[in-house]
Amino acid sequence: MNEREELPAIDELRTLLGGRLTTSLPIREAHGRDESWHPVAPPDAVAFATSTKEVSEIVRICAQHRFPVIAFGTGTSLEGHISAPHGGLSLDLSRMNRILEVNAADLDVHLEAGVTRKALNAWLRDMGLFFPIDPGADASLGGMAATRASGTNAVRYGTMRENVLNLTAVMADGSIVHTAHRARKSAAGYDLTRLLVGSEGTLGIITELTLKLYGIPEAIASGVVSFPNFEGAIDAVIETIQTGLPVARIEFLDEVQVEACNRYSKLSLPVAPLLLVEFHGSEASVAEQAERFGFIAGEHGGGAFEWAVKAEERTKLWEARHNSLYAALALQPGKKGLISDVCVPISRLAEAISGTKEDLKSSPLVAPIVGHVGDGNFHLIMLVDPENAAEVAEAQRIHDRMVMRALSLDGTCTGEHGIGEGKRKFLAAEHGEGVAVMHTIKQALDPLNILNPGKMLPA
Amino acid sequence: MNEREELPAIDELRTLLGGRLTTSLPIREAHGRDESWHPVAPPDAVAFATSTKEVSEIVRICAQHRFPVIAFGTGTSLEGHISAPHGGLSLDLSRMNRILEVNAADLDVHLEAGVTRKALNAWLRDMGLFFPIDPGADASLGGMAATRASGTNAVRYGTMRENVLNLTAVMADGSIVHTAHRARKSAAGYDLTRLLVGSEGTLGIITELTLKLYGIPEAIASGVVSFPNFEGAIDAVIETIQTGLPVARIEFLDEVQVEACNRYSKLSLPVAPLLLVEFHGSEASVAEQAERFGFIAGEHGGGAFEWAVKAEERTKLWEARHNSLYAALALQPGKKGLISDVCVPISRLAEAISGTKEDLKSSPLVAPIVGHVGDGNFHLIMLVDPENAAEVAEAQRIHDRMVMRALSLDGTCTGEHGIGEGKRKFLAAEHGEGVAVMHTIKQALDPLNILNPGKMLPA
Repeated sequence: MNEREELPAIDELRTLLGGRLTTSLPIREAHGRDESWHPVAPPDAVAFATSTKEVSEIVRICAQHRFPVIAFGTGTSLEGHISAPHGGLSLDLSRMNRILEVNAADLDVHLEAGVTRKALNAWLRDMGLFFPIDPGADASLGGMAATRASGTNAVRYGTMRENVLNLTAVMADGSIVHTAHRARKSAAGYDLTRLLVGSEGTLGIITELTLKLYGIPEAIASGVVSFPNFEGAIDAVIETIQTGLPVARIEFLDEVQVEACNRYSKLSLPVAPLLLVEFHGSEASVAEQAERFGFIAGEHGGGAFEWAVKAEERTKLWEARHNSLYAALALQPGKKGLISDVCVPISRLAEAISGTKEDLKSSPLVAPIVGHVGDGNFHLIMLVDPENAAEVAEAQRIHDRMVMRALSLDGTCTGEHGIGEGKRKFLAAEHGEGVAVMHTIKQALDPLNILNPGKMLPA
Repeated sequence: MNEREELPAIDELRTLLGGRLTTSLPIREAHGRDESWHPVAPPDAVAFATSTKEVSEIVRICAQHRFPVIAFGTGTSLEGHISAPHGGLSLDLSRMNRILEVNAADLDVHLEAGVTRKALNAWLRDMGLFFPIDPGADASLGGMAATRASGTNAVRYGTMRENVLNLTAVMADGSIVHTAHRARKSAAGYDLTRLLVGSEGTLGIITELTLKLYGIPEAIASGVVSFPNFEGAIDAVIETIQTGLPVARIEFLDEVQVEACNRYSKLSLPVAPLLLVEFHGSEASVAEQAERFGFIAGEHGGGAFEWAVKAEERTKLWEARHNSLYAALALQPGKKGLISDVCVPISRLAEAISGTKEDLKSSPLVAPIVGHVGDGNFHLIMLVDPENAAEVAEAQRIHDRMVMRALSLDGTCTGEHGIGEGKRKFLAAEHGEGVAVMHTIKQALDPLNILNPGKMLPA
């Protein structure tokens, strides 16, 4: 295929970008694939942008040719956000990776969208500052904003929703918008920042961000406690949150996941439901929090409470948690993980988890559950052979039941992975009339439907 | 004027609402007036709605007749949000004042938009829960959401932006939208909640809300400390925030305001810049925070640090703070307060305040400054005789300079009062191209421009 003749958009983009526009198949395929089980759909071309102005020029060319534009950060999303089912351009922002300004006095940083969270935290460490949002993967901060990412620290520090002060975004017509100034709060106008956070590249391309930062806590303490059943663990979480204990992380691993972590990370945790917690604060307040949590855990049947105040021990535990997906996959080598997340009010969490556990009991699937339970958010990783249609169908069935159950418990079809392609079918069940409002906004801001078409909103 | 003949919308509304639709002049005038210096513009009629369904029916009738609809809570806004410059209907939601469900385990409450924050907190007290957002006035929670209210506790608990989980809103076509479920976080679709929060009734009428709640802290401690100059006070605030001290409130009063409070509330505070702080937590953590803050204040020239751990002493201090507007007005009886707020990054706060203080030095106006300085937010209350054109013009001049200075310092033209009528002229200076995006959204969601026309967006 001679793309130069068939796709004039690519021709014009090549004139603008030279070698930073490619149609190489391996690069296109790598840009149509995320870390999920969703099928790969490569774009027609990949552009590596280097500035907001250039992104604006690229979008103008694409708009002129009605050529789809799909923003790409690191490709670590989990719901098919970056695939190109309608072809078009993958707009790779990874070369926009400059940290532009750290305002230590204001606890904020202005940076380009391609900076990853680990790169940011490495840069900040010597200043005694950090950015807490941690979705596991070393995602780009632009991608994390676009998908409203959260992760283990969200119970204490919030999600990307709460931690973006200001975005620079290129809209569908190529115009460049700065959504806010650096003030911590504002009552001036519609909240364009929050409209773009979580819009998955369908309303604008995020090119720069100003993020809130935090001082690295004076003291950090982690600990683990096992429970005879998951209900005890969840009740301990509820009481922890209710009493206002400012836990920084509180992660649940079911017994299947604990066994997977033991094998993968060479640990010897009791094979039982487990909570992994972390406290941030002064030496005195961390000690007080730990003591209170230990008491709460004990009241709900928790066993011996092991503290890991030393950095090495902490790191080992949290590495095991971060590797839990790989540990799960290693349970059945060769299979893929059908990964999904839901989030419910914390009082309904036990019901949400037990429903899925019941479904799994009568199923041949191996499927660990892990969760950021302080938020009522949990993940199911079902191991499936993608070639085995019956197995995939069974996983889909359990998945759909998990999502519909979460909705019936006043929860959401996704706490943090987003909609992408994978959960479009649930959006109407969750939002009802709200979907019409979303369509109206999309239509108004992207009338040609060039920004990440085929994602988020149901067709 | 026979309104029944002239305005068929009113005719139809009366059929729907009976005695809950009025055209009485005193009631109309009371609904066109807020607590600000902005001129009164009464609506053509006032409706007292009792349910979301009824609001939907009202909006449908108004849409059919292109009759403006202005949502009204308690009328305590400060930028002319509720006036009716184009006539139409004031839709009073104060009779929608039912608290529908408290979920203590999930720390949330579902209520109607007309419930006021004090009514909610009175209701919650016995459950050991509270809702922290406190703009001073006993505003309705629907109005607080619509104006993105914040106040003294925002530095610790966030603003309405962070504390609304879910809204029920009637859109311009009468459709009823629920923006979210009760989960603490979600990555499912556009953030309609945050789009409506702060939209000042121009995109939809908020009729019900689900709000986050918090446990009443085990211990609360308040204290005051005076400084020889305001720079020392502001530096103490910056260091407090930077070191991550979880201060619940940190309020600045300049010497003019302190003197006003002394007179009005019969206190004997030193007439000097002052910080009024509050800490929430366990007994031990509050004591630790207090000690740390005392040290920081001392380092920046702060004088003797007086603690008020007892509830009566605390109440007296905070009552004085809450009455600071009345105290200011009492400085020059008969004058009105031209009240405004701006918000800047905390590192620019001293510059923002000193610029205004310089302007005031060469002016005859008396104008105290108070601020929620932990957020970089402060208020200027200029006492003016509305009949004295020169005085009003001088106040406007200083006001405009304060706003433009805040914008030049990377701040916002309003941290919490909103745009309303009063700050429309600054929106473009703050948001640039973003205003076009806001116009597009408004046009798409309210094509007939019936929802609070003439507010927020520049003409």
